[in-house]
Amino acid sequence: MIRIGIVGYGNLGRGVEAAVKNNEDMELAAVFTRRDPSTLHIRTDNVPVVAYADMADWAGKIDVMINCGGSATDLPVTTPEIAKHFCVIDSFDTHAKIPQHFAVVDEAAKQGGSVSVISVGWDPGMFSLNRVYMNAVLPSGNDYTFWGRGVSQGHSDAIRRIDGVRDARQYTVPVEEAVQSVRNGENPELSTRQKHTRECYVVAEDGADLARIEQEIVTMPNYFADYDTTVNFITMEELQRDHQGIPHGGSVIRSGRTGMELENSHTIEYSLKLDSNPEFTASVIAAYARAAYRMHQKGETGCFTVFDIAPAMLCVQDGDFLRAHML
Amino acid sequence: MIRIGIVGYGNLGRGVEAAVKNNEDMELAAVFTRRDPSTLHIRTDNVPVVAYADMADWAGKIDVMINCGGSATDLPVTTPEIAKHFCVIDSFDTHAKIPQHFAVVDEAAKQGGSVSVISVGWDPGMFSLNRVYMNAVLPSGNDYTFWGRGVSQGHSDAIRRIDGVRDARQYTVPVEEAVQSVRNGENPELSTRQKHTRECYVVAEDGADLARIEQEIVTMPNYFADYDTTVNFITMEELQRDHQGIPHGGSVIRSGRTGMELENSHTIEYSLKLDSNPEFTASVIAAYARAAYRMHQKGETGCFTVFDIAPAMLCVQDGDFLRAHML
Repeated sequence: MIRIGIVGYGNLGRGVEAAVKNNEDMELAAVFTRRDPSTLHIRTDNVPVVAYADMADWAGKIDVMINCGGSATDLPVTTPEIAKHFCVIDSFDTHAKIPQHFAVVDEAAKQGGSVSVISVGWDPGMFSLNRVYMNAVLPSGNDYTFWGRGVSQGHSDAIRRIDGVRDARQYTVPVEEAVQSVRNGENPELSTRQKHTRECYVVAEDGADLARIEQEIVTMPNYFADYDTTVNFITMEELQRDHQGIPHGGSVIRSGRTGMELENSHTIEYSLKLDSNPEFTASVIAAYARAAYRMHQKGETGCFTVFDIAPAMLCVQDGDFLRAHML
Repeated sequence: MIRIGIVGYGNLGRGVEAAVKNNEDMELAAVFTRRDPSTLHIRTDNVPVVAYADMADWAGKIDVMINCGGSATDLPVTTPEIAKHFCVIDSFDTHAKIPQHFAVVDEAAKQGGSVSVISVGWDPGMFSLNRVYMNAVLPSGNDYTFWGRGVSQGHSDAIRRIDGVRDARQYTVPVEEAVQSVRNGENPELSTRQKHTRECYVVAEDGADLARIEQEIVTMPNYFADYDTTVNFITMEELQRDHQGIPHGGSVIRSGRTGMELENSHTIEYSLKLDSNPEFTASVIAAYARAAYRMHQKGETGCFTVFDIAPAMLCVQDGDFLRAHML
């Protein structure tokens, strides 16, 4: 059994707990938290909750740590800290800072003799992987990524910070005509506005100026100003009844050409439709935890990404089985 | 530059020729044929056409051979022969015989100190790869594969063998309701008939008994009897005008569940829409030729499949570039 440690018990940590339960070769060894461990109630029986500060005591008792912290301030500090003592996976998703994060974690992992895999999930993660395969296979072509329909936590938070807003949920929605044009191999040039719309469901405080709130949302720079945004005011009851899930998904599409004169066109599409964004992300991470465990057993050290890991490394089944049943 | 040799110059060999032209780090070194080399006219300037029997003379002058023979009788003999002297890629697609082919090629490649990659293309190949990723990420779930709309060469040939048929083209077509049901996460149990239909376009000889031909097609065991098959009689002019392409494609879909009680559902789909089946297959092969070249340079030997090769190995770009731009 691969002994897994979870670091941080928010939505992603809870998703990893479920993923470990659903992978026959993994067991949850401990959950680490910065909160008071006695206040944390996890769903798996007989698994200790431990203070983050006491992690070093668990050396040799955990095979892979799964770091479920946030990308903004947490993972850049904690993933290298953990890598000095344990194999570790994170889902670092600040695309622009990945090279820097990779360098720091690589140094720590080599120092600690451990294997780290960063930026695991679906984007970065499965989407990135598919971009690489698609580009390798169709060198002449264009990539497109569409996100949604799904909840953007960052955009929902941005709405909540507006004066007079009690709660809010924001859905990112791909523009169907744009997706169809890409699928048809038309290689369109698409502006931000032409690719996605933004749907907002807002619970306002009693007596709040709804027109002012709507105006603040649709003109908010970076978040909404560049999009066609619709704002729907609903009650708290409606929000709790209709908008409690964390669905997401999207598509990576590459349209490319082959032939002596590039006369033939091809479209490759990878799509996800997810009931629960954190649980799916956690399931991807669990598969890469298995790979990290195996790579470490083979004596590898350092930082890796999904690009560096052969697909067979993710599977419970061995090569003979995979060739006989899945090739 | 990676020096590529093409073995066999049919549709797939011609596709590889185009793929080599479209990959900036590859050059075509020679084309090998069992026909009289003087009768073969290839489209690339200044590249020799060589008799298959003289291949050994090219040791040291070619980095990777791409074996474009057929799976039934050719590849089981020639891939191990070639592997004793060269790195080699093939597209062996008799699923049931892959383990046996793997074992024979592995022994030859280890003996020859070369790297072989077998069963490269889209199914087996990209579809297999996606099945493995999907299963690793969603261990609880069901896989579905739909092929088409596309030309099946084997089924077209079967029709051509019927008495009174001049020419024919058969399209495999996925049943739209079945695909939608799978996409909706309904996990249907689907019979052969419920998954695909077969559309036949047949040019009959003058005066042939069309009713008898149609009856022979729709009742043909293995090929058509288990499907809803439609037969359309057309003229040779119509066949040549409307059915000269070799389009294909299809989808691999996995529908699976996550959560402590498997309460959330997810759907992953990988789809291809291809103008030219052989050119796309050839493009996948070219990417794996690059990987084989690099693995050989690193000192690896033996037989591999798409499951064993990390995605970064397929790309012209290095790890720094991929992490900065594609993760």
